Amino acid sequence: MYLELPMTTAATRELQRRLGADIVRTDAASLDAAAYDSSKIPFRPEAVIKPRRETQIGVVLALANRHRVPVTVRGRGTTLTGAAAPVRGGWVIDMLRLNRIRIDDEAGMAHVQAGAKVGPIHRAAEAAGWFYPPDPSSKEYCTIGGNIACNAGGMHGGKYGVTRDFIIALRGFLPTGELVEWGTATKKFAAGFNLRDLWIGSEGMLGVVTGAVLKLIPLPPARWTLLTAFRDETAAFEAARALFRLRVQPAICEFLDRDSVRCAESATGRPVFAGQKNRAVILLELAGTSSEVRELRAIVVGWAKQHAVAHRAARTRDEAEQLWAVRRKCSGAMFELGDAKLNEDITIPMRSYGAFAQFLAGLKRSSGLAIPTFGHLGDGNLHVNIMYHRASRAESRAAEVAVDRLMRKVVKLGGAISGEHGIGLAKSPFLRIQHSPAQVKAMQAVKAALDPKGILNPGKMFDVFHVWKHPKLTVKLPWDHK
Amino acid sequence: MYLELPMTTAATRELQRRLGADIVRTDAASLDAAAYDSSKIPFRPEAVIKPRRETQIGVVLALANRHRVPVTVRGRGTTLTGAAAPVRGGWVIDMLRLNRIRIDDEAGMAHVQAGAKVGPIHRAAEAAGWFYPPDPSSKEYCTIGGNIACNAGGMHGGKYGVTRDFIIALRGFLPTGELVEWGTATKKFAAGFNLRDLWIGSEGMLGVVTGAVLKLIPLPPARWTLLTAFRDETAAFEAARALFRLRVQPAICEFLDRDSVRCAESATGRPVFAGQKNRAVILLELAGTSSEVRELRAIVVGWAKQHAVAHRAARTRDEAEQLWAVRRKCSGAMFELGDAKLNEDITIPMRSYGAFAQFLAGLKRSSGLAIPTFGHLGDGNLHVNIMYHRASRAESRAAEVAVDRLMRKVVKLGGAISGEHGIGLAKSPFLRIQHSPAQVKAMQAVKAALDPKGILNPGKMFDVFHVWKHPKLTVKLPWDHK
Repeated sequence: MYLELPMTTAATRELQRRLGADIVRTDAASLDAAAYDSSKIPFRPEAVIKPRRETQIGVVLALANRHRVPVTVRGRGTTLTGAAAPVRGGWVIDMLRLNRIRIDDEAGMAHVQAGAKVGPIHRAAEAAGWFYPPDPSSKEYCTIGGNIACNAGGMHGGKYGVTRDFIIALRGFLPTGELVEWGTATKKFAAGFNLRDLWIGSEGMLGVVTGAVLKLIPLPPARWTLLTAFRDETAAFEAARALFRLRVQPAICEFLDRDSVRCAESATGRPVFAGQKNRAVILLELAGTSSEVRELRAIVVGWAKQHAVAHRAARTRDEAEQLWAVRRKCSGAMFELGDAKLNEDITIPMRSYGAFAQFLAGLKRSSGLAIPTFGHLGDGNLHVNIMYHRASRAESRAAEVAVDRLMRKVVKLGGAISGEHGIGLAKSPFLRIQHSPAQVKAMQAVKAALDPKGILNPGKMFDVFHVWKHPKLTVKLPWDHK
Repeated sequence: MYLELPMTTAATRELQRRLGADIVRTDAASLDAAAYDSSKIPFRPEAVIKPRRETQIGVVLALANRHRVPVTVRGRGTTLTGAAAPVRGGWVIDMLRLNRIRIDDEAGMAHVQAGAKVGPIHRAAEAAGWFYPPDPSSKEYCTIGGNIACNAGGMHGGKYGVTRDFIIALRGFLPTGELVEWGTATKKFAAGFNLRDLWIGSEGMLGVVTGAVLKLIPLPPARWTLLTAFRDETAAFEAARALFRLRVQPAICEFLDRDSVRCAESATGRPVFAGQKNRAVILLELAGTSSEVRELRAIVVGWAKQHAVAHRAARTRDEAEQLWAVRRKCSGAMFELGDAKLNEDITIPMRSYGAFAQFLAGLKRSSGLAIPTFGHLGDGNLHVNIMYHRASRAESRAAEVAVDRLMRKVVKLGGAISGEHGIGLAKSPFLRIQHSPAQVKAMQAVKAALDPKGILNPGKMFDVFHVWKHPKLTVKLPWDHK
């Protein structure tokens, strides 16, 4: 079942002596649990380290660096890319015990440890009248450390930005085990190279984040949700562009293509928009002071009348919640269309929305596969789900061809191969479509400079790995839909 | 007059053959003009290159890298730190001809070349109903490339953020002359290491930025300005903290201590706040939709009644402009207090405002120097101006001691030695107060990885340079006050 076999080396024994058996685990259950992330391709580590204090991570790294032991850091393992899977074995550091959250009420900042989950951070901020906008769909499970590692986004990206936009300072360790702090708990910092932001999105390959200071913004007191239906995907994209031209920035602007709508309807047993069959939809949320939302609402209703075939505002918070439930259900229901999914999270500039709609329709036809697509129109971040049956060689090959065509098209249209998931293993075959040889060389030079022995999350990003060629575990994770 | 003498080498002659004498200048006037920035400490370069096309910069760098010629990039040279001064001679690349600005009206982005000035970018954005918040006080002169190089800030930092927060993508060249693009014109990007943000604030030492995509936000249609007076600095700081606890984020929250107020009054010949003598002041601006500003205004007036000894709202845009004129005048008038200024731009966390006020009062007493201080309370970025007479050895020594004490105190209070100016030459003696040996070593490793021959802006940041020991030119620059 596992590609690597456990082997307790001298370094692991030394680490266990130093930190104790409560911190350093080598039992089969611990190793199995840390062997895979949401990509479900397992690689058994040699030990799992569950630090109770940040300084213990310095001890782990100093030893790992001396003995060249691969180190993979994991939060809850929700990443879909394999970034948290210990592909070269070695040690996994599990951050979940480092989960403190403290709100600086006056400065509008949250001081958090890397293993704190994003949902509790949201609630702690909101209890103090503050708002932390990044909201990946796994927010009740995923950790802020993981969000920093992949520069996670979510539905609020268009108006508010992504994780990077809310990181004020980071604390952590170099692979040598030396403690470093990048930035201070102040909103301006112009002293020395910006290694804070270099660490953000570096997928655990340049250093280990143990703590962060997050920027909060005042919690918008009012929200308003509108569901709109469109003839087809092209009409929905055109309408979204018209809305942005009105200078309206919805807090959320979620798109579901007709295939995704059908998946949601099959999952819930209810129409997404009663009386509207076979429509693409956009779910909008405005947020701000009550007067601001009132002002914008009038503009948005005028826009909907002009561009949508139908629209319906939520009259209560419960009704809004029902609308959002639809959006959350669509992803899991896709497994009725195939038992395997290539789950992409590309971005497209707004000006290319029309060209992309055409391309996607063509890709569905030429591949013969179901490719339900939904995502965040405020920032052009679309989740393209290429569904296939693993047992069918023809479908597997069609999926492989489709994902390659998708990535090449995305870059040609001026977009990105990943908007919020990162590279890990899953996107590694496409990194060189996005980045020129000079760009990759510069990134690798930075890696060699900061981690000369290559112990941090080796085998990721730059080494090509084809996830579709590797068997997946048939486990059900708590955040799997249905 | 100059510390380095011109010497036309073979590399310069080859470059001139390749790009022509219009692009590659070696005349005395061109060399003199590029010898210094706003720090006014001159170092004559060997050639000044004024590219008309970005690709010419690739040619310059490939040649410089082969021949190990130092390369310093300059915009308009407004930096106060010496970051744009060619301290090791070599070639200066003057970016001012690369000044295109294009607004993407729909996406809310500005596509700019590095030599575009910030003021024109503001106006181009505003003409399209968009807003680019970073606004260094030199905005009519300084270039966006320079702003990116030092991660410039300005008065809007507390609410909106700094330059880094508005950079979506960068284009430029590695020191090898290879073209690179970091990020795409989309608001999410999670593909590969974040060298975009590593370049931001790297002061031209890791690569040469030639173009950028900037994020814009909807232009707030309404603004409201309030002048408030306080008994002393401590009272003003306390009041600001009380305001932030009300979850009010003013677009601008500018503080002037009593010394700065006196400077402004001396410069304008008018009281800053008629009827109020010897007061510290805070100038506030709210911005948003008109209804949002109305809502917040009520809260702010209530706050002012409780905390300020006096307050006065601008009734018209002209009246507001008169209030802002005061703020802009204070800095130049400081030269009545000394002919030399150590101009610092430290940051302090809000919780330390009180402790810092006490420290500053003590520093003024112990040094015997005038140290007028003003700045941005929304982000704790204070401009501490240590004034002295260069001819007085006692005062010069007192200033040197005072700046060292200031920097150590700032870091002890959890702040930063520079919030928006950067390190350059001027802050280099203090870099190791902010950063541990491990942190400096990591930065230097990154420098060696990306610029192995060390041609980009050599002699800055890591090499200690005492600006106060070097003679300054007595030139008047267009942005010098008075």
